[in-house]
Amino acid sequence: MKMPSKISHEISVTSKIRVRFTETDPLGIVWHGNYIQYFEDGREAFGREHGISYLDQQAHGFTSPIVKSNCEHKLPLRYGDIATIKTTFVNSAAAKMIFRYEIFNDDHKLVCTGETTQVFLDKNGELCLTNPEFFKEWKSKVGL
Amino acid sequence: MKMPSKISHEISVTSKIRVRFTETDPLGIVWHGNYIQYFEDGREAFGREHGISYLDQQAHGFTSPIVKSNCEHKLPLRYGDIATIKTTFVNSAAAKMIFRYEIFNDDHKLVCTGETTQVFLDKNGELCLTNPEFFKEWKSKVGL
Amino acid sequence: MKMPSKISHEISVTSKIRVRFTETDPLGIVWHGNYIQYFEDGREAFGREHGISYLDQQAHGFTSPIVKSNCEHKLPLRYGDIATIKTTFVNSAAAKMIFRYEIFNDDHKLVCTGETTQVFLDKNGELCLTNPEFFKEWKSKVGL
Amino acid sequence: MKMPSKISHEISVTSKIRVRFTETDPLGIVWHGNYIQYFEDGREAFGREHGISYLDQQAHGFTSPIVKSNCEHKLPLRYGDIATIKTTFVNSAAAKMIFRYEIFNDDHKLVCTGETTQVFLDKNGELCLTNPEFFKEWKSKVGL
Repeated sequence: MKMPSKISHEISVTSKIRVRFTETDPLGIVWHGNYIQYFEDGREAFGREHGISYLDQQAHGFTSPIVKSNCEHKLPLRYGDIATIKTTFVNSAAAKMIFRYEIFNDDHKLVCTGETTQVFLDKNGELCLTNPEFFKEWKSKVGL
Repeated sequence: MKMPSKISHEISVTSKIRVRFTETDPLGIVWHGNYIQYFEDGREAFGREHGISYLDQQAHGFTSPIVKSNCEHKLPLRYGDIATIKTTFVNSAAAKMIFRYEIFNDDHKLVCTGETTQVFLDKNGELCLTNPEFFKEWKSKVGL
Repeated sequence: MKMPSKISHEISVTSKIRVRFTETDPLGIVWHGNYIQYFEDGREAFGREHGISYLDQQAHGFTSPIVKSNCEHKLPLRYGDIATIKTTFVNSAAAKMIFRYEIFNDDHKLVCTGETTQVFLDKNGELCLTNPEFFKEWKSKVGL
Repeated sequence: MKMPSKISHEISVTSKIRVRFTETDPLGIVWHGNYIQYFEDGREAFGREHGISYLDQQAHGFTSPIVKSNCEHKLPLRYGDIATIKTTFVNSAAAKMIFRYEIFNDDHKLVCTGETTQVFLDKNGELCLTNPEFFKEWKSKVGL
């Protein structure tokens, strides 16, 4: 049996966050900059589930700084809300990690979408122009 | 004498920030999410100079939540660096405020670029489909 | 059967936090200021379990700003650590809420202790010199 | 002429901060945890003026983690306020750095006081039981 190719190119992990008092601003809504933190929370939840977290990367001698991010806000989140973050790994041939994010509120309404792009730096801080070995192995292990 | 139209559509303000210890991460560089704060610092410096800060908007009964932002990182900033933020108002016919950001390090090298889009909400939290009066007056005052 | 009075004056709630990448500094340890956030996380976990969270207080028309806090650090926490926060309500006759915090690392070693004091402000932002009714009822409900 | 001994044991530096939008909470006032950042801003302003900043310490191979801090809040600060931080070095025989902070609002009213205690760690992360050489020299240079 062959898995449909579309599905085989997308892996998603869903995680929850509870909006902290300090994450909201005088308008009573989450300050927009905090969504970048929520994206990182989602990416780390993904990383822990699939063995590709910052700590996993460090164990292989690599770091993966964010080189690009974007964020679109549809609805506000408020203090005390429990939001759901869906983090999806976007497969790409380039030596990059691309993640897409969708954040939903308690009513399952889409609050925010975003995307981040990371590159790999080796032990010496040099940019990797091709995929590091550990990342190739990871991709193959998860079927990408 | 007629001013060239290109110049008349762009107003920029330059401000400085000093990178705080806490704004850097275990890799010794500014955590990417903090650039969103730097953009806000630049936007507020612009707002204070041109009378269009959050406080000015509030005085007219409006708020202007960010609905979209993006950020591209070229080089890292480190603890103690003095960075320069150039914030440019991007003129647009829509009922929106668009700002573009360029952040430079001590060596005048481009560290980061970005853009944010804000909409206007009135006293009742309703989205303004056309430009609020105060914003039209502001545009006309600054020659846009 | 009579409960020993000492025990009846202490209610504790234990909650967990996972140390985020951004909460650590260039030394690789949690920046000391973030423990104030962890204390709030513990206090809110306590509040949710015992019906005395910020949202509960607001529902009664009160806020409870922190007027005093202290923090002692014994050991560092690092990125990825799962810490346990024990939050204890310290009973007092005054119109105040006092909480004591103990944070433990994965090895059950004491990382940090602290205490915060809150006062009550009513709807008009006036300081309450005596305990608000809802707080008296809460105390009686939890047996203090 | 002999300087009074009391004065000779206190060196203070005054610096300014502008309260950011994000530093305020849904109550419209600065979230209490942010004062720890303001204290650090004051300590760093002191350090830059007197050659004892984190970067200066690192240049000598030392770090100085905070082991103790406390904070008392008298009045709130609000978004847009320009506050003044007076940071005072508290001389002590122990191998510690103790700073005292007073934060004043635009009306010169005392908003907040606090104190922090730092110890010294050497290159290997070992606690210094006696004052490091560079710190002794610094003290002597500033007349303590």
